[in-house]
Amino acid sequence: MTTGVRRRMGVEERRQQLIGVALELFSRRSPDEVSIDEIASAAGISRPLVYHYFPGKLSLYEAALKRASDDLAARFVEPREGPLGARLLRVMGRFFDFVDEHGPGFSALMRGGPAVGSSTTNALIDAVRQAAYVQILSHLDVQDPPARLELVIRSWISLAESTALIWLDGRRIPRAELEKQLVHDFAALAAVSAAYDEEMGALLRRILKDEPADGPFADLVGRIVALAS
Amino acid sequence: MTTGVRRRMGVEERRQQLIGVALELFSRRSPDEVSIDEIASAAGISRPLVYHYFPGKLSLYEAALKRASDDLAARFVEPREGPLGARLLRVMGRFFDFVDEHGPGFSALMRGGPAVGSSTTNALIDAVRQAAYVQILSHLDVQDPPARLELVIRSWISLAESTALIWLDGRRIPRAELEKQLVHDFAALAAVSAAYDEEMGALLRRILKDEPADGPFADLVGRIVALAS
Repeated sequence: MTTGVRRRMGVEERRQQLIGVALELFSRRSPDEVSIDEIASAAGISRPLVYHYFPGKLSLYEAALKRASDDLAARFVEPREGPLGARLLRVMGRFFDFVDEHGPGFSALMRGGPAVGSSTTNALIDAVRQAAYVQILSHLDVQDPPARLELVIRSWISLAESTALIWLDGRRIPRAELEKQLVHDFAALAAVSAAYDEEMGALLRRILKDEPADGPFADLVGRIVALAS
Repeated sequence: MTTGVRRRMGVEERRQQLIGVALELFSRRSPDEVSIDEIASAAGISRPLVYHYFPGKLSLYEAALKRASDDLAARFVEPREGPLGARLLRVMGRFFDFVDEHGPGFSALMRGGPAVGSSTTNALIDAVRQAAYVQILSHLDVQDPPARLELVIRSWISLAESTALIWLDGRRIPRAELEKQLVHDFAALAAVSAAYDEEMGALLRRILKDEPADGPFADLVGRIVALAS
């Protein structure tokens, strides 16, 4: 009976099932430790049948990574309502959910595993970074970003990636603290840039104007002033 | 005559010459665009002779990368004298010198070129990051770093990498501004962490205590306060 049901799976349906099974395995252990045999066994099909749908482990890995990166990019989408700090904090919560769910696979990918250097995997990573960049610009209501704003946003994105990787390595700091910290880091990097550039200063003042007095940005400035005095 | 001189080169001397020639080419153009033929021609020897010293382009690339990473790590070394902000600013100057000298090769490597994913190249990149981390700890006079300090330092190192990469992509911001900005970014990330953790707060107060009133840290705090008011 079961076999009968399986035989009726269409090609695309079977591909999607294999991607799901592979992604699950690649998320729980470093992808170079996961064999095609294991994927076949977890999917309940034979090894040759896996190769019928995917020519090799790399193509299955890339398909799994494509699904994961679409999933991550979707989590960046946030309604354009309410204070910016609170919006970014919600996105950070979903980002850490993702990192938590895919820990070993995320680490292996970002630290340079066997599949890194494939132009497909690099393009997928870049697409996710670009999605994050576009979302942030949209929330800041900026169409034509000056070079210094682009630098702040893109370098903060890499800071968020490395913060997540360091967190995964032992989880020695509560993730809620890091989610909040990354919101503050964004404000801090923008403030450093604004301290030396009038255009960035004007932009930051516009953002801060709409932040609540008890929001994360105001809170941060208060704490830094207290620290310095 | 010239050929006679070349013939007398010892094996190690010839290897070092080839590494130098290759590094020069890999620094000026993306390494995947540089052929063994070109390296042979620039070194004034035949293609088969290159293969006599290096089994393939990857091994020559790895040797060139080893020399470049030793060079970069050496630039992190800074006398433990004077205010910390000024020390870090001098290191940032030497870091941007390096990035400037090896621009296309640095970009290709860090953005994931054909040789990325080689365990040797990844290990070399990690060794340079570790050298930077150890230098910073030593300047901060910390033997046993708490997790939050390790996070600040390591995530700042990745911020410095991405700032340099973004700078190389069009050089739209003067590098002197970015060198100074990275010193401030370090202080800002430490301040964010210190704002929520007493141990980090004590550490940062100890650092700030020895900074001059007209140094970069004090300057930054003043500017952020001005911005917020």
